[in-house]
Amino acid sequence: MNRSRLEPLGVPNSGYTADSGAASSANLGQPSAFDRFLLKQIVSRLGDAKVTVSLWDTPAENVAPRDGGVAVRIADRKALIQLLANPELHFGDLYSAGRLEVRGDLLTLLDAAYRSIERRGGLSGWLERSGRRLAPDLSESRRNIHHHYDIGNEFYRLWLDREALQYTCAYYASPDMTIEEAQQAKMHHVCRKLRLAPGERVVEAGSGWGGFALFMAKNYGVHVRSFNISREQVAHARDWAKQLGLSDRVEFVEDDYRNAAGADRYDAFVSIGMLEHVGPGNYPALGKLIDSLITPNGRGLIHTIGRDRPDRLNPWIDKRIFPGAYPPTLRQMMDIFEPNGLSVLDVENIRLHYAETLRAWLARYEENVDKVRTMFDETFVRAWRLYLAGSIMAFMHGKLQLFQVLFARSGVNDVPWTRAHVYERG
Amino acid sequence: MNRSRLEPLGVPNSGYTADSGAASSANLGQPSAFDRFLLKQIVSRLGDAKVTVSLWDTPAENVAPRDGGVAVRIADRKALIQLLANPELHFGDLYSAGRLEVRGDLLTLLDAAYRSIERRGGLSGWLERSGRRLAPDLSESRRNIHHHYDIGNEFYRLWLDREALQYTCAYYASPDMTIEEAQQAKMHHVCRKLRLAPGERVVEAGSGWGGFALFMAKNYGVHVRSFNISREQVAHARDWAKQLGLSDRVEFVEDDYRNAAGADRYDAFVSIGMLEHVGPGNYPALGKLIDSLITPNGRGLIHTIGRDRPDRLNPWIDKRIFPGAYPPTLRQMMDIFEPNGLSVLDVENIRLHYAETLRAWLARYEENVDKVRTMFDETFVRAWRLYLAGSIMAFMHGKLQLFQVLFARSGVNDVPWTRAHVYERG
Repeated sequence: MNRSRLEPLGVPNSGYTADSGAASSANLGQPSAFDRFLLKQIVSRLGDAKVTVSLWDTPAENVAPRDGGVAVRIADRKALIQLLANPELHFGDLYSAGRLEVRGDLLTLLDAAYRSIERRGGLSGWLERSGRRLAPDLSESRRNIHHHYDIGNEFYRLWLDREALQYTCAYYASPDMTIEEAQQAKMHHVCRKLRLAPGERVVEAGSGWGGFALFMAKNYGVHVRSFNISREQVAHARDWAKQLGLSDRVEFVEDDYRNAAGADRYDAFVSIGMLEHVGPGNYPALGKLIDSLITPNGRGLIHTIGRDRPDRLNPWIDKRIFPGAYPPTLRQMMDIFEPNGLSVLDVENIRLHYAETLRAWLARYEENVDKVRTMFDETFVRAWRLYLAGSIMAFMHGKLQLFQVLFARSGVNDVPWTRAHVYERG
Repeated sequence: MNRSRLEPLGVPNSGYTADSGAASSANLGQPSAFDRFLLKQIVSRLGDAKVTVSLWDTPAENVAPRDGGVAVRIADRKALIQLLANPELHFGDLYSAGRLEVRGDLLTLLDAAYRSIERRGGLSGWLERSGRRLAPDLSESRRNIHHHYDIGNEFYRLWLDREALQYTCAYYASPDMTIEEAQQAKMHHVCRKLRLAPGERVVEAGSGWGGFALFMAKNYGVHVRSFNISREQVAHARDWAKQLGLSDRVEFVEDDYRNAAGADRYDAFVSIGMLEHVGPGNYPALGKLIDSLITPNGRGLIHTIGRDRPDRLNPWIDKRIFPGAYPPTLRQMMDIFEPNGLSVLDVENIRLHYAETLRAWLARYEENVDKVRTMFDETFVRAWRLYLAGSIMAFMHGKLQLFQVLFARSGVNDVPWTRAHVYERG
C-alpha cells in the first residue's frame, strides 16, 4: 500500500483522514493466543457467511476471497480490539485507513455484518449517543451542511445522475431504468403528487444543486423560490438556471429555510432530502413555518430518509459523513403536521428504491474512482465507498426507510380525489 | 307532532329515548327578555349562515325555511339553555326528541354549526371528557359493540349497499359510482394493496356482516378466518357463507380479535373499521398480536376513521351512537407498528370518500325512513338521521379522517415495488 496516499489531498478540514494506526503497526509481532481468541469471537458473530478473516501475520498479498466470498485482513492489534469493542463506530475508520482490508465484495461483508447485528438483537452499538443536539441551530446547521455538501461539485458529478444531479432517492417506476431515468421519474412522481399547475408558486427547502427546482419550472411551468445554505451548491444552481434561461422563474436563495418566512405565500412547499438535517427538535417550528408559507389551499410534500423506530444514525456516518443528521420515524414527523393544522394525505415508503439508487451511485463511483483519487486521498476514497455500500445495506435490511409525505391544511377539500393521477401514463 | 311516536318501539335498552323535556314544556309561557338574549347569542354564533331560529312562541306550523336556508324552532326554555351551554352534547338529544325542530336541509344547519365551531377556535366542547377508558377490556368491548351493531340486521340492510353490506367507508374510484360499485371498489382497493394471491391465508379483525371476508374468498381465492363479537353479525355472516358455498374457505369466529392468537399463521392481517373500537391503550397489544399472527413475509392493512390531532369523539355520538369509540391520529397508530417490528409502507387518507359514502347512506335512509319507523320510535329515526348527517359534515370539515395503513415486517423485501399495481385496470 502506498502510504503517501493517506495524506490529505486538498480537502482542508475534510475530517476524512482517520487515525492511520502507524504507531502500533510498527511493533506488531506474531498474534498471541488471546489475539486468536478475539478473532474467533468476530468470526463466530459473522455466522455462516462466506467471510474469512485473517490477522496481520498473513501477508496482505496472500489474502484472497474463496468461492465468491469475502476475505478480510485485520492489520494490527489495536484494530482487532476496536473492531470487537464497537464495530459500528470503528469499522468505518479502520476500513478507511486500510487497517481493515477487504478483498471480494464489500456488500457481502456488510450484509453479513447486518445479519450479525440482527441476530444479536439488532440494536447493540446503534443506540450509542453521539452527543449531538437533536435541534441544530442556524450556525450548527451551516457547519454540518458545509462538511458534507461543500467538498466539491465536481466530485458529486462523477457518480450522481448526469441530467439533474439528484443526491436523493430515485424512483424506479420500472426496475430497468437508468439512474438518469429514475431521477426524472422521482421528480415527476413528486410533482404529480403535488399536482403542480402552470403559474403556481413553489417554495423549496434544500435545493441541492438546483436540479429539482429547475425541473419543476421547466416541466410544470411553476415559479420556484429555493433555499439552501451550501454555498457551492447555490453557486452551481444559479449558473445552471442562467444556462437554461430559467433565472426569471427560479430564484436560489443562499439562506437557511428558517429565513423563508415573510409576506410571500406559495401554492406548494416541497423538500426533498433536507429533513434529515433539520433535527426532530425543530419539527414543530418547521410545521409552523410551512403553515405561514402556504396559501389556504396550499399543500406540501416532504421526502426524507426515515426509520421504523427511533435510533441514532450509525456513529461512524454521524462522525465522518453526515454530522448531525437524523432520520425520523413517522411518529416524530407528526410533530411537523399535528400541532400546525396540517393533514397527512399520503405516505409512501420507497425504501428499496434507495438501495437501488445507491447501487447505481456506487457502480459509477467505482467506474470513476481513479478520478476521485486525483481529488482526494485514499482514506477519503475508501470512506465514501464504505458509506455508499453501507447505505445500500441499511436500506436493504430496513434499518433506514424513505418516506414521501404529502399533506394539506386540515379540512381543505381541494385535494386529489384518488392517487390514480400519479400513475397515469402521460 | 305526534307525541306517542316518542315512546320506544321494540328496542329494549336501545338507549335512544332521550329526555322528552315534557315537564318543562307544560309551563312554557312567553319567552322572556332573557330568553331572547340567549337566542341572539345562538344566532350570532351561526354567523351569516342562512339559518333562522325561533322560540316556542312561534307555532311549529309557521316555521319554514326561506331562500333555500334552514329554519330551526327551539321548543322549550330548557332546550334553549342546554343548547347554549353545550351544543355538541345536547344538540343531538334535543333534535332526536323533537325539542329542536329543523325545517330545510339539516346538512346546511350542521355546516353552519361546524363553521361556528371553527370560528370559535375549533375545540370548545369537543375536548369534553367522556370518562370512558381508552383501553376497553373484553367485556366493555362486548357491551359497546352490542349497543351499536346488534340493533337488527334488517335495519342496516335498508340503507347500506345491497351487495356487500359494507358499514365502512367506500372508495369512489370514479365519482359517479353507485354506493354498490364504490364498496366493491373499496374491497378491491384493499385486496390490491395487500396483493392477495390464491391459496393465501387471511385473518380479519372485525367481520361486519361478512361481506369483505366473502369478497376476498370469492374474488381473490384466499382462505379467511374472521373475528367478530357482534352475535347478530356473525349469525348473518355464517348464513351468507353457506348461501354462497364458501363455508369451507371462510370461517367466522364469534370471539374478540384478541383471542385470535394461536398456532395459526396468516399471510395477511386485515381490519376494516374495527380500530375505532380498540382504544389507543390497546394498540401496542394489537401490534404484538399482529406480529404473532403473520408469517415472516406477512403483511397487513388497517382501515380506520382517524384524526389530524387527538380529540374525543363528539360527546353525543359517544353517548348515544358509538359508546367507547375513538378515532386515532397517525401518531397514536404508530403504537401498533413501532414497538412491534412493523414497517409502514403506505398511508392513504380518503376522508372525502367517507363524506360521499355517508351521503349515499343518508339518501337511502330517507328513502326508507317509513320502514325504519315500523322498527323504531321517532327519537331513533331522528337520532340516526342526525348521526349520518353530522358524520358527513365531520368528514367534510376535516374533523375526521379515513386512513388506510399498509404495513409489513421491518426489513422484509418481499413488498410491492411501486403502488402502480393498485391502479392498473383489471
